Amino acid sequence: MTLNPADSACAEALRGRLSQDLFRPVEPRYLEEPRGLFKGTAGLLALPRTVEEVSELIRAAARARVPVVPYGGGTGLVGGQICAGGPAPLILSLERMSAIRAVHRLENVIVAEAGAILADVQAAARDAGRLFPLSLAAEGSCRIGGNLSTNAGGVNVLRYGNARDLCLGLEAVLPDGSIWHGLTRLRKDNTGYDLRDLLIGAEGTLGVITAAALKLHPIPASTGTAMLVVPDPAAALELLTLARDLTGDGISAFELIHGEGLAFLDETLPDVRQPFDARPDWCVLIELGLFAGLDAQDMLVRLFETAAARDLALDGVIAQNEAQRDALWAVRERIPEANRLIGAISSHDISLPLAAIPDFIARAGAAVARHGDLRVNCFGHLGDGNLHYNVFPPRGRSKADFAAQREAIKRMVHDLVYALGGSFSAEHGVGRLKVGDLERYADPARLAAMRAIKAALDPHGIMNPGAVLRGPAD
Amino acid sequence: MTLNPADSACAEALRGRLSQDLFRPVEPRYLEEPRGLFKGTAGLLALPRTVEEVSELIRAAARARVPVVPYGGGTGLVGGQICAGGPAPLILSLERMSAIRAVHRLENVIVAEAGAILADVQAAARDAGRLFPLSLAAEGSCRIGGNLSTNAGGVNVLRYGNARDLCLGLEAVLPDGSIWHGLTRLRKDNTGYDLRDLLIGAEGTLGVITAAALKLHPIPASTGTAMLVVPDPAAALELLTLARDLTGDGISAFELIHGEGLAFLDETLPDVRQPFDARPDWCVLIELGLFAGLDAQDMLVRLFETAAARDLALDGVIAQNEAQRDALWAVRERIPEANRLIGAISSHDISLPLAAIPDFIARAGAAVARHGDLRVNCFGHLGDGNLHYNVFPPRGRSKADFAAQREAIKRMVHDLVYALGGSFSAEHGVGRLKVGDLERYADPARLAAMRAIKAALDPHGIMNPGAVLRGPAD
Repeated sequence: MTLNPADSACAEALRGRLSQDLFRPVEPRYLEEPRGLFKGTAGLLALPRTVEEVSELIRAAARARVPVVPYGGGTGLVGGQICAGGPAPLILSLERMSAIRAVHRLENVIVAEAGAILADVQAAARDAGRLFPLSLAAEGSCRIGGNLSTNAGGVNVLRYGNARDLCLGLEAVLPDGSIWHGLTRLRKDNTGYDLRDLLIGAEGTLGVITAAALKLHPIPASTGTAMLVVPDPAAALELLTLARDLTGDGISAFELIHGEGLAFLDETLPDVRQPFDARPDWCVLIELGLFAGLDAQDMLVRLFETAAARDLALDGVIAQNEAQRDALWAVRERIPEANRLIGAISSHDISLPLAAIPDFIARAGAAVARHGDLRVNCFGHLGDGNLHYNVFPPRGRSKADFAAQREAIKRMVHDLVYALGGSFSAEHGVGRLKVGDLERYADPARLAAMRAIKAALDPHGIMNPGAVLRGPAD
Repeated sequence: MTLNPADSACAEALRGRLSQDLFRPVEPRYLEEPRGLFKGTAGLLALPRTVEEVSELIRAAARARVPVVPYGGGTGLVGGQICAGGPAPLILSLERMSAIRAVHRLENVIVAEAGAILADVQAAARDAGRLFPLSLAAEGSCRIGGNLSTNAGGVNVLRYGNARDLCLGLEAVLPDGSIWHGLTRLRKDNTGYDLRDLLIGAEGTLGVITAAALKLHPIPASTGTAMLVVPDPAAALELLTLARDLTGDGISAFELIHGEGLAFLDETLPDVRQPFDARPDWCVLIELGLFAGLDAQDMLVRLFETAAARDLALDGVIAQNEAQRDALWAVRERIPEANRLIGAISSHDISLPLAAIPDFIARAGAAVARHGDLRVNCFGHLGDGNLHYNVFPPRGRSKADFAAQREAIKRMVHDLVYALGGSFSAEHGVGRLKVGDLERYADPARLAAMRAIKAALDPHGIMNPGAVLRGPAD
């Protein structure tokens, strides 16, 4: 199974069949990714405007046995969008397919093309008086096709689910160039295998998503935000249960923040206003969205009082207006920036069964300490069991000083996650960065089934080779 | 690809490797299904107690090229559990794997074996102070493995989703006998292809589900039930939007009932107490479940008053106690029984984009009328776009008198559903009854992908042959 490069001969062949203005020179941005871990090789860049053009491109690539890399917003953190080794690929950017095709207000459905920027999908929903709840740091530049291909998560998964849970139907081009017209708006459709969920999260290795029918939700009538100091992660989990018993589905976000993250903000981004005078060890950011005449601020007061009476909350700040809300969210949202400025030795996007989280934090912390006087910033979407567990050098030292220990730390974290029934990739995906982790930790029967499915749907291995599963060139 | 019968030679081979008491004589109930449309051939019946025994059985069947039919509660309505043609199968009943393996209260997760009866899963959740919301007519005898294999729906899909949406992880045996240990309790796990959702809804054709980790929800603090008379289906949809804007996620069920269904109850089950003196053309049954100190009865009054002011509700009954609640639900739940007593010429489990429902009901009604003075009972899960659309003979005539028109009516209904972007099987599945419909209406690219996946994962075609996709013997 050898692939050919998307070289000038390939370009000639493609240009003969397809409109000239589909192609653009490969600018450097298509060959780079946010963390600088992968560098792509320049082949061809095509910018199709219709699903038929995508089909033609894939069909041509399949004939020529040329690798194809679907390209969304380029914001992925695991190299899924960068074909770094092997023959130069045809980069297929969906950026010109960015239309909102329809909003079905009564049905709570929006139909968007894959190249639509997430923030634009959110805005179109809001204009129709509805909520599209997928929300993550890159929402201003990531594209919905990439969000679906990577099954993106973010801050509202607790209440509304991840990208998979928000998708009703897909239009996609399969690896032989055939078009699947699957843009259904149906809530129930039990007619055979779930191709939708197979393409979602496949990171472009089983086809190219070109459009999606997505679920909308009502906009909560009253929203509120609070940051509560908790004694420890176990108390944070009890607080979550309490909040759920009280409000049912009312909690949209429940984010854990470690004192180290607040210290990093102090150190690197002193303009971020800290909510507490004394820096707490642990706190949680809670967002409520309520209906039916309920007042979210009142409910947060009630939650705080109940939690305080049970020693689950030691202190708290409830936002009184939009500016205070933004200030609380800024604390959470700027932690990744502070992390980058400090420079992590090793960073992990892990998930765990909720009950295992306190144990994990304790054991991982002890194990990290055996590597030296390192700092750990552990934060994330606690309600989903999703932690961003990042290990940093001591103050005054650089991550480069600890390069030799990086692999051992990574292995320790992932081994412990695996032993506790967790996942080495909660929301970022496998991409090219974690192919080895997948091979190490995945259930062998499932991995064999994945390889069989890949071979069945993409027998020439042209779709995003090397992502998720090891490619012929790896 | 020829399969061999599960005959005495096969039995000898299996008995040599496996414990004697795994096998039982094939009682008639394993060869029958609720509607009497399919009659199975008696091969062997095995009742494994562990996933390892399931694995041994499938491995042996794969070696012997013997068809395997996974058997749950036997309540399916499309013949997925009955191998009617071809070589006699090994029937693999999961009834001895019925344990609730664990309830993780803090995590809102229950782990149940495939043979657990749905009502027992619900009860185990309730005992832990949690809700397992999957609920359907057969819940006293259907088993959770079958619910997952068919992606069962029911009355609470509107709020909590179908079986797929309630599943976090699976343990399953693949067609080569390998065991997939995928009982994760994680809410986020982006590590490769979604094998879970591929097995869910595959109706036993890609493997056997042996256990599942399932999502639990908090039990609403206040519940309420009402039946409201609406002018027409379009008004019912507006009422649904109104109810959602008012209560957010508070509506657990929103069922449409046609006057014909009430007339059928009068005719066949006069003990069912009707809620209105004058029989309405259309009404809806609404179930609310609220948190945070809200009172569901008060909210239903508010909903009724708001709806009445907009001419969306003409009359209404709000249950004041549990007995009245049960009486309202009995109206909805006993309609299928009345239907059976009348005897349908043709019955359909369809779904439509919500906005297309009024148009569908009008056009289908006009088309049915061209076949004679027939009666239509159209009811179902309106909030999900899922209608049970059933056509009956005039009073005093029998369905046998219209047997010749059955196919034409069925085709008309399904063609219209297809034209409006709907599905010919909302929740019952394809089974063996609707294989032809799938071939007629499925997107060709998707159907080709389904066949490729089936061939890749089950190259000998032993798993439930003839269900979903046409088998070698069909």
